[in-house]
Amino acid sequence: MLGGSAVHFALAASFFTEVRVVGPVGDDFGAEQLGVLESRGVVTDDIERVSGGETFFWRGHYEYDMNVAHTDDTQLNVFAEFDPKLSEESRQAEILFLGNIQPELQRSVRELCEGAKFAGLDSMNFWLDNEREALVRAIGAVDCLLLNDAEIRELTGEPNLARAARAAMEMGPGVVVAKRGEYGAALFSGDDFFAIPGFLLEDVTDPTGAGDSFAGGFLGYLDSRRAAGESVLDHAVLRQAMAYGSVLASFNVEDFGTERVQSLTREQIDERLRELRQSTLFEVEQAPSS
Amino acid sequence: MLGGSAVHFALAASFFTEVRVVGPVGDDFGAEQLGVLESRGVVTDDIERVSGGETFFWRGHYEYDMNVAHTDDTQLNVFAEFDPKLSEESRQAEILFLGNIQPELQRSVRELCEGAKFAGLDSMNFWLDNEREALVRAIGAVDCLLLNDAEIRELTGEPNLARAARAAMEMGPGVVVAKRGEYGAALFSGDDFFAIPGFLLEDVTDPTGAGDSFAGGFLGYLDSRRAAGESVLDHAVLRQAMAYGSVLASFNVEDFGTERVQSLTREQIDERLRELRQSTLFEVEQAPSS
Repeated sequence: MLGGSAVHFALAASFFTEVRVVGPVGDDFGAEQLGVLESRGVVTDDIERVSGGETFFWRGHYEYDMNVAHTDDTQLNVFAEFDPKLSEESRQAEILFLGNIQPELQRSVRELCEGAKFAGLDSMNFWLDNEREALVRAIGAVDCLLLNDAEIRELTGEPNLARAARAAMEMGPGVVVAKRGEYGAALFSGDDFFAIPGFLLEDVTDPTGAGDSFAGGFLGYLDSRRAAGESVLDHAVLRQAMAYGSVLASFNVEDFGTERVQSLTREQIDERLRELRQSTLFEVEQAPSS
Repeated sequence: MLGGSAVHFALAASFFTEVRVVGPVGDDFGAEQLGVLESRGVVTDDIERVSGGETFFWRGHYEYDMNVAHTDDTQLNVFAEFDPKLSEESRQAEILFLGNIQPELQRSVRELCEGAKFAGLDSMNFWLDNEREALVRAIGAVDCLLLNDAEIRELTGEPNLARAARAAMEMGPGVVVAKRGEYGAALFSGDDFFAIPGFLLEDVTDPTGAGDSFAGGFLGYLDSRRAAGESVLDHAVLRQAMAYGSVLASFNVEDFGTERVQSLTREQIDERLRELRQSTLFEVEQAPSS
C-alpha cells in the first residue's frame, strides 16, 4: 500500500504549509499515488522517476501491543543509486525534513539545501546498527533529531532518557524529540522539557508511518509559525508543534497506509488537538494537608 | 532494606492524611523499621508481630531501562498464615488501600473494612498467572484498580489499553489507573480519560515500591479532599491525585528503599508537582494555516 517516509510526512505537513517532496520512485509509483499527494497540494516536481526501477519497500510486523516494530524486509531499490538533484525552490526551503534513509544521503541533501534554517532528521535502529558513524555525522548537521526513545538510548549508550537526550544534543541538534509510541512524545530544547501523552485510541490499525506523520505535523506546524514571523525555537511554539505531531500520528495509525490522513480536514485536526489537551489538564492549587 | 507495599504506601500517603497500616511482620522488622513509619506519623497499632516469623520478602532485578521488573524470589513468610484482625479504627477508615498480596486476603480485608467508601487495589502478574479467579473476585469488590498497563492488558485479554480499561471497569471498579513506569500513568474514570507523563529524572536508582508510592500519593491526597468534604470521584480531584501519585513515585525511585520519601517535606512535593505540571503545558489557540 502507499507509504514511505516522504509520503506520510508530506500528507501530514500539508495541513499547515506548502510541502515539496524530494526522492526517487520506481515504475510502481504511478498516477494514483502521485494523485494522493497532489490532492493535498503537495509539490511533486522533485520526485524523480527511475525507469525500470522499483520504489523503496519496507515490510514488518508489530508486537502484541503495537508499540514495537520488527523489520521483516527492507529493499532500498531506487534509493540504492539515488543522486539527489534538487530544484532551486527545494534548495531554498527554510524548513527541511530528512526522512529515514541512508545517513550519507541525508547529509548530502542537507548540504544541498542551503536555505534551510531548521533541519530535522529521523532514522531507525537499522542505520544505528549498520552505519553508526555516518548517522552521527548526519545528526551533527541538523537542528532537530526525531527518534524513538529506545533508539536515543542506543545511539548514546545512556539508559536514562534525560541523559541520553543531552548526549544526543552534544552531537549537534539543539532540539531532540523522543517518540514513545502510544505513550506520546517528549521534547528536549535547550533547558526546556515537555512531555505529551499519546491520544487515546480504541482502534489502532497500523502504526506504520506514525513517526513520519508526527514529523509532518511537527515541522509543518513549525513552518506555519515561521511564515508568520515567529521563531521555531520558541518553547511555546515547539510545544504546540509537538501536540500537532501527536495528533497527526494518532490519525495515521487509525487506518492502513495513508487512508485516514489523506481524507482529513484541518477542523478535525484542531478538534482532536483540543481533546488531547483536555486529557492532560490538572490543577495544582494548594489543597488541605495534615 | 526496608520496603514492602504497605511501608512505601504509608510513607507516601502520610504527607496528606493519617495512615493506619495493617499487616504481619516477622522478628526481622524491628524498632528501627517501626521508627521510620512512626516518625512520619503513621499509626502502627495494627501491625502484627509474628514471633519466630520472617517478614514478607521480594527480590528482583530490572531491565536496562528500569521499566520492566523481573521477580527473582518471593517469600510470603508471615503472610502465608495471616488472619487479619483489624482494630475498630481501621475498620472505619473511609479510604482503603489493598496492597499487592494474595487476592483472597485482599478480599477478606475489604470485607472487614465496613466503613470504606473508596477502596483501591494493587496486584501484579504473579497473582494474575497463579490466582486469576480470586483476583477477579477481589477486583470486583473495590472501587479503584491500580495496575501496570501491561497487566491490565493481560487481565482482560485486550491489547488496546482503552478497551482493556473498560473491560476492567466491567469487573467492578469505577476507576482504573494504568501505571506506565517512566511514561507516567493514565486514569479512566467514568467517561473521563486523563494521562500524565512521568516526572523527568536523570538518576533512577531503584524503581522498587514506585507503584505503592504512587498509590500512597494518589489515595492519601484523595483522603485529604474527602476530609475537606469533597467527592473523591470528582474528575478534577482524581486528576490532581494522579499528579501527586506521580510525584511521590518519582521521589521513591531516586534512592534505595524508603530513603528518599521518608525524609521529604510537603513543600518539596508541591514544588515538584508544579515542575511536573509545567512540563505538560501547551497552548491550542488558532494558528495560521495554509
